Amino acid sequence: MGKYVFGVDLGGTTVKLGLFDTEGNVKEKWEIPTRKENNGSNILPDIAASIKKKMSDQGMDKNDVVGVGIGVPGPVDAKGVIYKAANLGWGEFSVKEELAVLLGGIPVEAGNDANVAALGEMWKGGGEGYSNLVAVTLGTGVGGGIIINGRILAGATGAGGEIGHIHIEDNETDTCGCGNCGCLEQYASATGIAKLARKKLAESDEPSSMRRFKDVSAKTVWDAVKDGDKLAIEVAKQFGEYLGKGLAAIACVVNPEIFVIGGGVSKAGDILLDYIREPYKKYVFHASRDTKFTLASLGNDAGIYGSARMVLD
Amino acid sequence: MGKYVFGVDLGGTTVKLGLFDTEGNVKEKWEIPTRKENNGSNILPDIAASIKKKMSDQGMDKNDVVGVGIGVPGPVDAKGVIYKAANLGWGEFSVKEELAVLLGGIPVEAGNDANVAALGEMWKGGGEGYSNLVAVTLGTGVGGGIIINGRILAGATGAGGEIGHIHIEDNETDTCGCGNCGCLEQYASATGIAKLARKKLAESDEPSSMRRFKDVSAKTVWDAVKDGDKLAIEVAKQFGEYLGKGLAAIACVVNPEIFVIGGGVSKAGDILLDYIREPYKKYVFHASRDTKFTLASLGNDAGIYGSARMVLD
Repeated sequence: MGKYVFGVDLGGTTVKLGLFDTEGNVKEKWEIPTRKENNGSNILPDIAASIKKKMSDQGMDKNDVVGVGIGVPGPVDAKGVIYKAANLGWGEFSVKEELAVLLGGIPVEAGNDANVAALGEMWKGGGEGYSNLVAVTLGTGVGGGIIINGRILAGATGAGGEIGHIHIEDNETDTCGCGNCGCLEQYASATGIAKLARKKLAESDEPSSMRRFKDVSAKTVWDAVKDGDKLAIEVAKQFGEYLGKGLAAIACVVNPEIFVIGGGVSKAGDILLDYIREPYKKYVFHASRDTKFTLASLGNDAGIYGSARMVLD
Repeated sequence: MGKYVFGVDLGGTTVKLGLFDTEGNVKEKWEIPTRKENNGSNILPDIAASIKKKMSDQGMDKNDVVGVGIGVPGPVDAKGVIYKAANLGWGEFSVKEELAVLLGGIPVEAGNDANVAALGEMWKGGGEGYSNLVAVTLGTGVGGGIIINGRILAGATGAGGEIGHIHIEDNETDTCGCGNCGCLEQYASATGIAKLARKKLAESDEPSSMRRFKDVSAKTVWDAVKDGDKLAIEVAKQFGEYLGKGLAAIACVVNPEIFVIGGGVSKAGDILLDYIREPYKKYVFHASRDTKFTLASLGNDAGIYGSARMVLD
C-alpha cells in the first residue's frame, strides 16, 4: 500500500499540483503552465511528466503512490469521463483512463473542479468532520459541489452541483451566461452583487460611500456594509435573500449537514453568513432549519486537496 | 448466502409485506394492521412475528434470508435511525437495530417511505435500468426520493428528497402545511391542483366542464384537460410551470438521468408529462436539458420492492 497521493488542479492558465501523505499533510506544492495549443493535447502528458519527475526526485516508485486525483474545468461524470472543456479545447474522453496510461498504470480519479474543491473542504477545510455538505463558490459565477457520504455527487452528465443556475427570480429580463433568466448566479456572484449595487445606487439619490467608486465591485459593497452604509446593507439583504432562498431549495433536495461558503466574495468574512442565515431559515423546510454555515478555509488549495482525497476512497 | 428478502412498507393503517427472491420476483404479498396504540410499541413486534411466521410456513431458516428492509413514514437517516413519526407515536430510535433484534439477528435496513419507494421504482418500476433518478410523488402532498448511484440519498437528518417544500412562488399568502408560503406542494399536489382550478373558475365566467362538479378534484381537472376544456388546460399549464420549475432546480443540484413521476395525480397518464417537460426545459441548466421523464409503474407496491432492494446493496 502506497503512502503518498498526488492532487492536481487543472486550470485554464496554470496546473496546480500537490504531493500529500495519506493523512492529508501536504509535502510539496508546485505549478506548471497549462499549454492549451493543439486542442490541449499536451496538458495530460505535461502533468504526467511533472508527476513522474517529482517521484524520481523524491526516490519514489509506483508502489509508494496510492494514486493521482485530478480536478478539471468541465463536467465530469462518476466514471471520470469529461464531457467538454471548451476552455482547454477538450472534447469528450476519459481523463481518468488517459492519465492512468500516461502514468504507467498508477490509479487515477477525475472530477469536476468545483466538486473536487468541495471534497477538499470536507477533508481539510471548512467542512472537516462532516461527510454530507454543500460547498458554494461565490466568484465571478456561482459554483457548487455536493458531497454525500464523503463522496462527490457527480450527476448523470457531470452537472451535479451546478447550483448557480437554479431559477430564483421570475421577474428578471437580463440573460444569464447560460442563456436563461433569473439564475442564482445573477444575484449571488461577485458580478451579481455589483450589479445589485449599481441598480440600488441608480434608483435613489441617497448618500452612500459606494458612490465614491467609479466601478462598484462586490468588495466595495461588503466594505461599505461593514461601515454601516445604508444602501450597501440593503444590497447585502437582497443578496442574502436570493442566496438563502437558493440554499433552502438545495437543502430540500440533499439535506446537508453544513454549507461551506467560499470563493472571492467569501473574503468579506463572517458578516456574509449573517446575511444568508436569516432568509435561509425563512424559506427552508423545518427538518433542515439547523443546517450549519461556515466559510471555506483552503482558498486556492481546495482543488489539490480534494483531488488527492478522491483517490483515497 | 440467502436467496430471499423481505420488504416491509409501514403505513399509518396497514403494513404491507412482500417476500422476494434476490432477483426481485415477488413470491408472496400480504398485509397486517398497524397497531398504533401505546405509542406504536406493538408495530415492530407485529412485523417481526409476521415475518417469522411466513418463514416458518415456507420452511425457511435465517440462512435463507439475506435481510429485511422496511420503509417508515418519517425521516430516517443513512444509519436507519428514525427522527420522529408522529403518525405512529414514534420518537427517535434505530428502527434498523430494533427490528434486527426482534428478528433474532437477521440484517435489517430502514429508510423513509418516499425514498424507499424511489428505490423500488429504480429496481422494478419506471426507473428500471437507471441508477441516478429522482422519484416524485404527486399525492395529497408532494414527496420525493433521490437515488444516487443506486442508493438512497437520506440526508443529514433523513430529510433528503423533501422536494415538496422547495420555495417556488414569492407571491403566495396561503400557508403550506409545513408553515412556509409558496412551497411546490401548494401547486403540484392533488390538493394544490384542485385549488388552482377553483381559483381559475372563480376568476372568470368562461364556460368549463369543471363547473359541473361541486368539488373540483385533480381528477376533474385532468379529465377536463383530456376533453379539451380551455380553463382546465390553463390550470394544467400553471401546474406544469410550477412543477417544471421545481424539477429544474432539483436537476441543478443532483443532475439525474430520469424523473419518475408517481402518486395519485400521475394516474392522469402521459398527458401529465407533456405539461411538465416544456417548462422544465425552459428553466433548467443546459447540461440537464435532456433528462428523461417517465411515469412510476409499481403503484402501491413500490414500497415493498424498494425496502427489499435496500438489503441487497
